[in-house]
Amino acid sequence: MTQYPKELLTLIAYLKKLPGVGRKTAERFAFYLLEWPQDEIKKFSTQLETLQEKITPCETCGCLKDGVSCAFCDPKTRDSSLLCLVSSARDVYAIEETKAFKGLYHVIGGLLSPLEGRSIEHLALNKLERRLSHHPIKEAIIALDSTLEGDATALFLKQKLEEFKIPATRLAFGLPMGSSLDFVDYGTLEKAFQGRQVF
Amino acid sequence: MTQYPKELLTLIAYLKKLPGVGRKTAERFAFYLLEWPQDEIKKFSTQLETLQEKITPCETCGCLKDGVSCAFCDPKTRDSSLLCLVSSARDVYAIEETKAFKGLYHVIGGLLSPLEGRSIEHLALNKLERRLSHHPIKEAIIALDSTLEGDATALFLKQKLEEFKIPATRLAFGLPMGSSLDFVDYGTLEKAFQGRQVF
Repeated sequence: MTQYPKELLTLIAYLKKLPGVGRKTAERFAFYLLEWPQDEIKKFSTQLETLQEKITPCETCGCLKDGVSCAFCDPKTRDSSLLCLVSSARDVYAIEETKAFKGLYHVIGGLLSPLEGRSIEHLALNKLERRLSHHPIKEAIIALDSTLEGDATALFLKQKLEEFKIPATRLAFGLPMGSSLDFVDYGTLEKAFQGRQVF
Repeated sequence: MTQYPKELLTLIAYLKKLPGVGRKTAERFAFYLLEWPQDEIKKFSTQLETLQEKITPCETCGCLKDGVSCAFCDPKTRDSSLLCLVSSARDVYAIEETKAFKGLYHVIGGLLSPLEGRSIEHLALNKLERRLSHHPIKEAIIALDSTLEGDATALFLKQKLEEFKIPATRLAFGLPMGSSLDFVDYGTLEKAFQGRQVF
């Protein structure tokens, strides 16, 4: 069997590391990239190479910033009495799209997962504790995934917030918008019953 | 709405150009790449940048080669009386994996598609004609997709081969291996009947 050229195999190996990309997809990407105009490839690779220099996490909240100041920490536009705890910088953009929250964020950098070996040391707790002790916060909103890992991390953060006497809330569980009862799983339906609201 | 940092948006735009990658997947890739070790990113981007310099199509057959000589044109290992016509260099590797063919290849560089504006000028015909007139070929195997575009291109190539008095064959149509009759479409079943073989 004649194999792909070595240099192509190397690129395929890198592409395969992207999330959700298997061998076939990586091969497809690589052959597609072979056909790209040379100057586009050049710009793409430069963008890739300089990405991490240009985009750094904010020292305070952990959100991404591309300039000197963090747009999410600006006291003029944000309500500093509310703090939203998220697991990754990406979640912030999803929450921002809802326009439901105008407070500050704190990226804890992951979820607890004993199976994948992520314990308390993997969360950016020192920064969070410093922040909680130095700034008056009226409410901390735990905005984590509704998974086993998210639940475990939320419980842990709740205890941490209690130490600092900060009231904690968590995102509501219930029916996703546009869903029909037939297709909603029992766990979600149970949560929706438990969390029912005056109508 | 607070948008992603500009530099991240630029990278997402490039990633979105990959085949089958939409906005959500491109964003996922970009955030994943933000977390990669810096030296891995560096190697990945270099690989990308130098790809097209290192891998060039063979001047004779259009297959990819990473060295000086083309592995698919070697007269010592390949039967030069058989010529397999494929649409892209990638198809060659799929055929090689079957070990069913030991002849030469010719990459025509695409399929005819009036809808997408690809006409005869887009195929590498000059090279093919030069090859057909200079080398004695006993059989030309047309190995193109079984799609409308593949059929149109196959018909066109058949006429071209007739001009050079070269017998043409085309890959068989029929049931894919492991398929059950219930799930095979009528078009395939019809082709399988028409092409039935002595058993």
